[in-house]
Amino acid sequence: MARNDKRKSYQMREINIIKDFMPNAQGSCLIEFGRTRVLCTATVQNQAPLYVPEGTGWLTAEYSMLPGSTGTRKARERMKYDGRSIEIGRLIGRSLRSVMDFTAIPGITITIDCDVIQADGGTRTASISGGFVALYLAVEKLIEKGQIERSPIKKYVAAVSAGMVGGTPLLDLCYTEDSSAEADMNYVGDEDGNISEIQVSGEKRTITGKEFTDLLMLCRQGVDRIIAKQKSVLEHKKEEE
Amino acid sequence: MARNDKRKSYQMREINIIKDFMPNAQGSCLIEFGRTRVLCTATVQNQAPLYVPEGTGWLTAEYSMLPGSTGTRKARERMKYDGRSIEIGRLIGRSLRSVMDFTAIPGITITIDCDVIQADGGTRTASISGGFVALYLAVEKLIEKGQIERSPIKKYVAAVSAGMVGGTPLLDLCYTEDSSAEADMNYVGDEDGNISEIQVSGEKRTITGKEFTDLLMLCRQGVDRIIAKQKSVLEHKKEEE
Amino acid sequence: MARNDKRKSYQMREINIIKDFMPNAQGSCLIEFGRTRVLCTATVQNQAPLYVPEGTGWLTAEYSMLPGSTGTRKARERMKYDGRSIEIGRLIGRSLRSVMDFTAIPGITITIDCDVIQADGGTRTASISGGFVALYLAVEKLIEKGQIERSPIKKYVAAVSAGMVGGTPLLDLCYTEDSSAEADMNYVGDEDGNISEIQVSGEKRTITGKEFTDLLMLCRQGVDRIIAKQKSVLEHKKEEE
Amino acid sequence: MARNDKRKSYQMREINIIKDFMPNAQGSCLIEFGRTRVLCTATVQNQAPLYVPEGTGWLTAEYSMLPGSTGTRKARERMKYDGRSIEIGRLIGRSLRSVMDFTAIPGITITIDCDVIQADGGTRTASISGGFVALYLAVEKLIEKGQIERSPIKKYVAAVSAGMVGGTPLLDLCYTEDSSAEADMNYVGDEDGNISEIQVSGEKRTITGKEFTDLLMLCRQGVDRIIAKQKSVLEHKKEEE
Amino acid sequence: MARNDKRKSYQMREINIIKDFMPNAQGSCLIEFGRTRVLCTATVQNQAPLYVPEGTGWLTAEYSMLPGSTGTRKARERMKYDGRSIEIGRLIGRSLRSVMDFTAIPGITITIDCDVIQADGGTRTASISGGFVALYLAVEKLIEKGQIERSPIKKYVAAVSAGMVGGTPLLDLCYTEDSSAEADMNYVGDEDGNISEIQVSGEKRTITGKEFTDLLMLCRQGVDRIIAKQKSVLEHKKEEE
Amino acid sequence: MARNDKRKSYQMREINIIKDFMPNAQGSCLIEFGRTRVLCTATVQNQAPLYVPEGTGWLTAEYSMLPGSTGTRKARERMKYDGRSIEIGRLIGRSLRSVMDFTAIPGITITIDCDVIQADGGTRTASISGGFVALYLAVEKLIEKGQIERSPIKKYVAAVSAGMVGGTPLLDLCYTEDSSAEADMNYVGDEDGNISEIQVSGEKRTITGKEFTDLLMLCRQGVDRIIAKQKSVLEHKKEEE
Repeated sequence: MARNDKRKSYQMREINIIKDFMPNAQGSCLIEFGRTRVLCTATVQNQAPLYVPEGTGWLTAEYSMLPGSTGTRKARERMKYDGRSIEIGRLIGRSLRSVMDFTAIPGITITIDCDVIQADGGTRTASISGGFVALYLAVEKLIEKGQIERSPIKKYVAAVSAGMVGGTPLLDLCYTEDSSAEADMNYVGDEDGNISEIQVSGEKRTITGKEFTDLLMLCRQGVDRIIAKQKSVLEHKKEEE
Repeated sequence: MARNDKRKSYQMREINIIKDFMPNAQGSCLIEFGRTRVLCTATVQNQAPLYVPEGTGWLTAEYSMLPGSTGTRKARERMKYDGRSIEIGRLIGRSLRSVMDFTAIPGITITIDCDVIQADGGTRTASISGGFVALYLAVEKLIEKGQIERSPIKKYVAAVSAGMVGGTPLLDLCYTEDSSAEADMNYVGDEDGNISEIQVSGEKRTITGKEFTDLLMLCRQGVDRIIAKQKSVLEHKKEEE
Repeated sequence: MARNDKRKSYQMREINIIKDFMPNAQGSCLIEFGRTRVLCTATVQNQAPLYVPEGTGWLTAEYSMLPGSTGTRKARERMKYDGRSIEIGRLIGRSLRSVMDFTAIPGITITIDCDVIQADGGTRTASISGGFVALYLAVEKLIEKGQIERSPIKKYVAAVSAGMVGGTPLLDLCYTEDSSAEADMNYVGDEDGNISEIQVSGEKRTITGKEFTDLLMLCRQGVDRIIAKQKSVLEHKKEEE
Repeated sequence: MARNDKRKSYQMREINIIKDFMPNAQGSCLIEFGRTRVLCTATVQNQAPLYVPEGTGWLTAEYSMLPGSTGTRKARERMKYDGRSIEIGRLIGRSLRSVMDFTAIPGITITIDCDVIQADGGTRTASISGGFVALYLAVEKLIEKGQIERSPIKKYVAAVSAGMVGGTPLLDLCYTEDSSAEADMNYVGDEDGNISEIQVSGEKRTITGKEFTDLLMLCRQGVDRIIAKQKSVLEHKKEEE
Repeated sequence: MARNDKRKSYQMREINIIKDFMPNAQGSCLIEFGRTRVLCTATVQNQAPLYVPEGTGWLTAEYSMLPGSTGTRKARERMKYDGRSIEIGRLIGRSLRSVMDFTAIPGITITIDCDVIQADGGTRTASISGGFVALYLAVEKLIEKGQIERSPIKKYVAAVSAGMVGGTPLLDLCYTEDSSAEADMNYVGDEDGNISEIQVSGEKRTITGKEFTDLLMLCRQGVDRIIAKQKSVLEHKKEEE
Repeated sequence: MARNDKRKSYQMREINIIKDFMPNAQGSCLIEFGRTRVLCTATVQNQAPLYVPEGTGWLTAEYSMLPGSTGTRKARERMKYDGRSIEIGRLIGRSLRSVMDFTAIPGITITIDCDVIQADGGTRTASISGGFVALYLAVEKLIEKGQIERSPIKKYVAAVSAGMVGGTPLLDLCYTEDSSAEADMNYVGDEDGNISEIQVSGEKRTITGKEFTDLLMLCRQGVDRIIAKQKSVLEHKKEEE
């Protein structure tokens, strides 16, 4: 099955990450997965929520799409509730928390905001991957200023999607591919190949064990690729081609 | 690791399904997974939403917990929005739609309501499993009345959870087990062993491939067990012990 | 005028009360007035509202109908406000408070939740009558555990409706009777024949003094009958036939 | 028991009604029960709600208190919901509808708005009594303009409260009396002595049959007095002293 | 261009101010600009918001229109948000604060409520002008009671509108003039001819510098006239004709 | 008085405009006034609101600040209402409409969205100035596609702020200047020197006629400067230095 942009089935779209895109925020980046673009910021607040244990901190996340991010204008969430946005915000939070050691940020809450500027599929996975970069930069600043002693980040984490389109497993679906997918997987993984989150959904039909394994393999490769990019941007490590 | 109720790690809690618990509804049941109890109803409306193709129908679902379902009273969702409830409602809807052929119910919307009477872990998986029963009963009535010609249900579907607790994979977590789990999986599958939905989340830490596979195996067995129960209730098939 | 179910004009529908239907709640019951079924729970919170006098406690109530309780699905109250539900919740609270001595539960708030599972007329009166049972059971548990020394309940209280249907006064209206009533009365009374609340409403026309007295007499008998049932369930007293 | 303002137990406060207080509205008045003042307006809309029978109309009502109407400022109802206001709005609507013949206003909805300018007890009964005046004036204008042929108003209707204060039944409670009442009655009646609505509530204790009858008698007299005032204002009939 | 009510272009409508219209409020008035009528109240709270400097106080304002104030009923703001009302409330607050010395009311918040009873253009300027009167009266009472030592009011302030209608600059537009205006100015000024607020808006077209100056001159005269009226009411000063 | 960034009192911050920043939108730009950055998009909908005359169209605008745009995170407007945002959205709409001829876009609504990425004073004036650019680009595309025949834009429009800071009139205030301003003006003007909107506010004190004139002159120059920039970007005209 030929993809619109000539990509191979196992190939990701081009990834771009511009660090410190919003200087007022403690950490921020603009991340692009092809035409999908998300502004990610990390804000630090010197107060932990009441429900976390003494001596620890917390991380929370919110996700939203700008009205102009889609072809037909998306109404603002003012005075209404977008279940999808809330669900994705919760997913971003869980994903980033899975690689955090909260004893390293006692009494601190970090909030990750992911605002989609342009949507072309994969906005939630771009948000997680870019949210990590914003988090990393905010943590660097906290250490620099002496507010914390060591980084709460245990590992790199990134996310990617894959789906069954016309019977073929494809990595990193763009919007038109996503619309016609029979099933899709959102995969969040760490740099050691472990799993943070998997969400597989076969709304149009159930999927077989074989299909599941194919999607899983594609996503693992994709996450490795994104983490390499994150490292090149954050630690100036050269990406392997 | 010993479980409170002496269950083996791969053992489900006792399942009970009382059909037609709410006679006013087209289809309904009270489902119990151990102490977890959910009222499931299916209501039929002779109107399909605008966004589905001509000649088809739709299924949607809502989930809520009664105030008295938990030890400390859970506030009603009046005038506020419980992100978790919305997310679970969406999950129930997707799960049941994955086994539906909507061309069999043209111009019809079926709404599944899952109201948790008592919560002891696994309320979302009990809701999906019981929601299927309510759906099945409503469909039977539609056929009986001659409103539709054939059943839109292609396969049985059911759901169960599993989790890593103290390093051990356990099936069908009760509330205390769930609270201390390092990672948990919600699995929705059909009667042929195919996957409708998988949601794995390792909030406290990421999980390994081995752990993932163990949880997957447990869940598959659990779903087979629940589907056997559904069939015994709906078709008077004897369950194999 | 013949009633659908052959009842005499002064006859109540069959009353059933299942105690402890929701074991997680401190007190609970499932009450049935004919086909009308309501889940009632009492939850205890060790904190009194700021507006009650030092050394006393409080009781509050909420009422809601499950979506599947009526023939055509009733939308959930999420993000909107059902004036009728709020009004009934306030009525239940006032009714139960009229037989309470709050100096017996200092620093305690009891919340009564009445969730209608199936609606066939008289849901508010069934809620008050069942709410009393849930309250009674919760109070028993508070005394057993030594949290309070004596019961705050001064008397039994119960409620019933009556109405003018086709010029005839009828007790305990079912839904079809209620829909065609010219006027209806909701009556809440104690075991000594005193009045807690009366609400009479002649929306279609005003009603005469004679009609008012007839309705009042019917309701008094009905309340006596329900209180006998409550006593048989709570104190194992034999009901007089 | 001596009343603050020297009234006898069966005496009403001074009643004033200024017609056409808000000229933009089709019908309006400012009604005063002593220090309690309510602005009442009737607005006519040439559209009946979908749920009323073909060839009829409807009447609905809303009630609200201005922020400055009470000694300590009452927050506006913006973005929140005041259960008490809604409940009173519903009561006003039912009361006025009980004397209406809706076949006389086919395709018309009349909305009664009651806005309390100053609150000193009895705001709901003043609202009903003044709402009737606004309704009457709006109906006169509809007839004048030839929009309807005959009046939908079958009878005068008015409302008053009474209560047990320190064991004594008192008519038309002011705020301080109302605050210390053991039980109170809101009574809505027509010019023929019939009942439109009675709401009796003994929140602090239940009340005896004797007390109930005493309150009822007081209210009947009060309503007669108010209807005499309404007639003097609307038909220039001299009030009997 | 002839005005409906024969006014000259530079002439205001008749102004009436009735002091102490709502006795429960600390300060209040009913102000009329022709047929436009606004109830203004000032309520005093012994608590300053957290964001004002120690040793100072604050003033805030809210604006609303009663449902019956306009020819076609205006829906209440319950559960929705009227941007225009909020914007005007903010304007009233800023305007009055511009003549206040908050060190004179340490620890005090004054809330001005402006509720439009009847709307015929200029409701916001009548609200500011009447809000000042309510404020002045509340301040007098605070001084009388010894709660504050000196008045926080530095100067009188009032407001008026003007607009370009058919190419002619007109003062104090009524509703029909306002509806056909090409541009309009709302001007808030003090008794020394200084400016508190100007809002000019040329929604239908942009306006020239000459037009702007003409509107400004008209407004200045109008404000002088209103302040003379305020002084005659508050200090019994004779107005110059 | 020396400005932080060494600007002269009559000098604007550096202006940058990046066209087509959000390719999914019909028209868009990223506009910068110094450190203030706003994303502006124009979306076209083939439907005019019911309240505009037959044969015309409409333009509406919304404004919001991203959570990460300010030093301390700004909460999202979900389920609450930010009066300031609504007020600014209305201002942007009026400003752009003042230069539009709506007979050129019959049956079309254009929505301008201004989302502040980074806030350092002047976000509303940058929004108007950038909103115009997005509008211009969307109109060009409508003409290109043949959807409309001629441009509805009659003139360029832009906006700038000025304020009295320590007694000195300054153009284009940054955040720290704005915070300490005694009075500020927001000025919207067209390319011919005419006025679209002026909002002057002297919250801390009233301002004199002389001060008003000084601010007006500064703003006029500023608007000329911004319009020159708009033309250079949109029509490749060289800006005069």
